[in-house]
Amino acid sequence: MLTNKQIKLINSLHSKKGRKENDLFLVEGEKSLLELLKSDFTVDFFLLNEVHVSLADQISQQSKAPIYFLDAESIQKLSTLVNNQIGLAVVQQKKFPPFIIQDRYTIVLDGIRDPGNLGTIIRICDWYGFKQLVLSEDCTEFYNPKVIISTMGSFSRIEFTYVDLPTFFKEHPEYKKIGAVLNGENIHHYQFPDKGFIILGNESNGIREEIMESLDERITIPAFGEAESLNVGISTAVIADNLKRFILS
Amino acid sequence: MLTNKQIKLINSLHSKKGRKENDLFLVEGEKSLLELLKSDFTVDFFLLNEVHVSLADQISQQSKAPIYFLDAESIQKLSTLVNNQIGLAVVQQKKFPPFIIQDRYTIVLDGIRDPGNLGTIIRICDWYGFKQLVLSEDCTEFYNPKVIISTMGSFSRIEFTYVDLPTFFKEHPEYKKIGAVLNGENIHHYQFPDKGFIILGNESNGIREEIMESLDERITIPAFGEAESLNVGISTAVIADNLKRFILS
Repeated sequence: MLTNKQIKLINSLHSKKGRKENDLFLVEGEKSLLELLKSDFTVDFFLLNEVHVSLADQISQQSKAPIYFLDAESIQKLSTLVNNQIGLAVVQQKKFPPFIIQDRYTIVLDGIRDPGNLGTIIRICDWYGFKQLVLSEDCTEFYNPKVIISTMGSFSRIEFTYVDLPTFFKEHPEYKKIGAVLNGENIHHYQFPDKGFIILGNESNGIREEIMESLDERITIPAFGEAESLNVGISTAVIADNLKRFILS
Repeated sequence: MLTNKQIKLINSLHSKKGRKENDLFLVEGEKSLLELLKSDFTVDFFLLNEVHVSLADQISQQSKAPIYFLDAESIQKLSTLVNNQIGLAVVQQKKFPPFIIQDRYTIVLDGIRDPGNLGTIIRICDWYGFKQLVLSEDCTEFYNPKVIISTMGSFSRIEFTYVDLPTFFKEHPEYKKIGAVLNGENIHHYQFPDKGFIILGNESNGIREEIMESLDERITIPAFGEAESLNVGISTAVIADNLKRFILS
């Protein structure tokens, strides 16, 4: 049976402070739980709706972590989601080895604050085959439950690191710093360099001045109408699509 | 001074029923209000925070609609937004002339339910220069406040129509029906026809079976990783970008 201590632990994981202190985070809802099973994350325990027998069977076949059963209402109460009567897992935050850039191109985020945007970007990275993500220290927390749910399971496949961007850039001089801005080169005609960081900036303010100054190249998604900007997740996807097309052409 | 009747009216516009009965909708927050001023929508009245003098000045210079002033707290109470202490407008829904397709390509939505997604798609249409949008009758309501705010002002520049899609398709045989699916032709290599409808389906279920059967062509955004799908807003943007690139090449 679930102890009061475990209930307290779950509730503490609703906050960033609790996640940091415990080195744990929550994975909620069926889709995310199923993706979790396929990953190498370590699960401390599962909490499942007692009526979803097939999900419990599947989990018990693929994981040795304890499973506790509760009714729908109790799960809803312990979940951060507006609608989750399926279940959740308490999962250990990953200890990545020291971060080494693996690919020719990596997405770099400067000051992304909205958890939904970060989750969407993680999902886009996973769609377009970026295995790593670099975030400025003030980006929203990867393990925020709203980020996790927005990734639609892709959180389990992306390695990430939070860095001081100017220092990180100095350590990787061989990668061109390519910033997504509103007055750069049209990505439809842009010749991507051999290796690069694709940098996307904050939702309201874009790439911060300090980083702007260190850019090697500036790219822009061409506009054909009157909207002033695109959402940062949308921009990430369109740029990733153009990059993949360029590489393969 | 704002009357009780007007307060009741504003509150009624929080619901679809109220918007339908009154043929009105709400435009909330500074960005949307400023875009509204540039549009040909008819405003019944504005409700502004008494301390934002410069916004009130700007509005009074560009609109003849009455302006009422309230304190921040009262505006917040009347707004549907989590955070709006700036102001709102009560605006007449537009009576479009009978819908006639203007462009070679038009975005068509089949069963889009999430207001945030619809708003994002409207913003993308506006970025990529699509002036019209066709929606199946069960798509979420254009004038939903969550849609309006998600468009970031682009709601004012897109003509739209809700239709029975099978009938609409039969009435426009000269437009190829091009569906975004998960196992179609790679859009990086796809030769767009002379005229077409780009059809995007429901968030969970994609394009419904009945519509699937009437498709002339099926297109897919190539995947390079393991994510199972992309959000429908993201997909719309990437397809629009590929289409524009194709047309201009």
